[in-house]
Amino acid sequence: MTAPSIQMDPIGTIRSCFTDKFGVPRQPGLIKEARGTIELCPPFDREEAVRELSAFSHIWVIFQFHKSQKEDWKPTVRPPRLGGNKKVGVFATRSNFRPNPVGLSVVKLESVETDGGKVRIHISGMDLLDGTPVIDIKPYIPYVDAIEGASGGFAPEQPQAPLGVSFSDEVALFLDRLSKTDYPNARALIENVVAQDPRPAYYSKEKRQKPFGFCLWDLNIRCQGDDAHVTVMEVSRVR
Amino acid sequence: MTAPSIQMDPIGTIRSCFTDKFGVPRQPGLIKEARGTIELCPPFDREEAVRELSAFSHIWVIFQFHKSQKEDWKPTVRPPRLGGNKKVGVFATRSNFRPNPVGLSVVKLESVETDGGKVRIHISGMDLLDGTPVIDIKPYIPYVDAIEGASGGFAPEQPQAPLGVSFSDEVALFLDRLSKTDYPNARALIENVVAQDPRPAYYSKEKRQKPFGFCLWDLNIRCQGDDAHVTVMEVSRVR
Repeated sequence: MTAPSIQMDPIGTIRSCFTDKFGVPRQPGLIKEARGTIELCPPFDREEAVRELSAFSHIWVIFQFHKSQKEDWKPTVRPPRLGGNKKVGVFATRSNFRPNPVGLSVVKLESVETDGGKVRIHISGMDLLDGTPVIDIKPYIPYVDAIEGASGGFAPEQPQAPLGVSFSDEVALFLDRLSKTDYPNARALIENVVAQDPRPAYYSKEKRQKPFGFCLWDLNIRCQGDDAHVTVMEVSRVR
Repeated sequence: MTAPSIQMDPIGTIRSCFTDKFGVPRQPGLIKEARGTIELCPPFDREEAVRELSAFSHIWVIFQFHKSQKEDWKPTVRPPRLGGNKKVGVFATRSNFRPNPVGLSVVKLESVETDGGKVRIHISGMDLLDGTPVIDIKPYIPYVDAIEGASGGFAPEQPQAPLGVSFSDEVALFLDRLSKTDYPNARALIENVVAQDPRPAYYSKEKRQKPFGFCLWDLNIRCQGDDAHVTVMEVSRVR
């Protein structure tokens, strides 16, 4: 009575500023500076396959949580939204530890590039890790997908970015000098990622006073603060 | 450079009034009388896995288009919305003929039943075929998913149900006598399915005058009309 397994072949790969799980926003749409690209792979990288896509303002990306193993799923999870200490059913969350490691994100469609025999779909507001395999792309259809008056359980509204953020003078200078092409909106992006507080929700007040770090592109970002304010202390290249 | 295949195991199965591809609404949310159930299967049919789910008004169902073969995908499709004669890229549509046969539907969550060691999630507004394998269930999070001001390309607003519908006296009587438990809202459901015009968009004016039929539950529904009005002529049991 169990249905047979289904085999999916990735149609493309995410290129993202988020090169580290730590720092990825917890939902899409929270950080508009989070930009990236879906690169379609053969045999799906055909101009015809994306014809008319650019008429839509947003798209759904269905992807594989490739850093989470299926074997790791548990029937309940502790969503960060509930402070990380209340358990709810895995199907009542968007947790990446699920029976099938499938993610769903709506992102803003910036442009579709089909030059040179490649298809690159530029997106923003993303919460996707670099290297993520993409299973499908679908247009966001407002009259179907934007449901008025829907109620959102334990996540009824957008969380306010809880932290104030400042930059050391050295970091401010470093960011000013970065290539605007290779690192677009780097300062705003870092500020917004830190403001959302990438640290696990279950961290104690004491643990929050310790330094922490994460990666964006090839930059390693080191911070320190508390549960109200964080200073970006150091930014350095990983490679 | 091609990413490895991903294997998914269905977590459940759809039980639906739509027992035939013909007649399934072209999007979810169009027919509120379209009710059904997601039956979770072992080892996923655990009460804990759906804890707190009922606090959400809507859920995403990620499912397999099990009647469509992967091999059938083409880079372009002709969406019914464009009269069935204009080609757009497969990734700019919700067509079921796609590189990976994955569907995405948002449905209204009616209730979650966890009696007797089974998990049944009752839903409405569905566009899902009976027997559809379910890959994942996620809560609809309004602040993320309901995007204000998104633009919908070639499907900017809800299509108006194009047809007037009437019932023969014999059919009206038959529907009146049907079990309200086994066939809830049968008449309104049939009326709404027919009003959306289940016939392919590319049918000619002449072809539209021929009788046509479809199934709901174990009922075979026979109709005849034109491109403005259709009469439900006969309803009979298949088995």
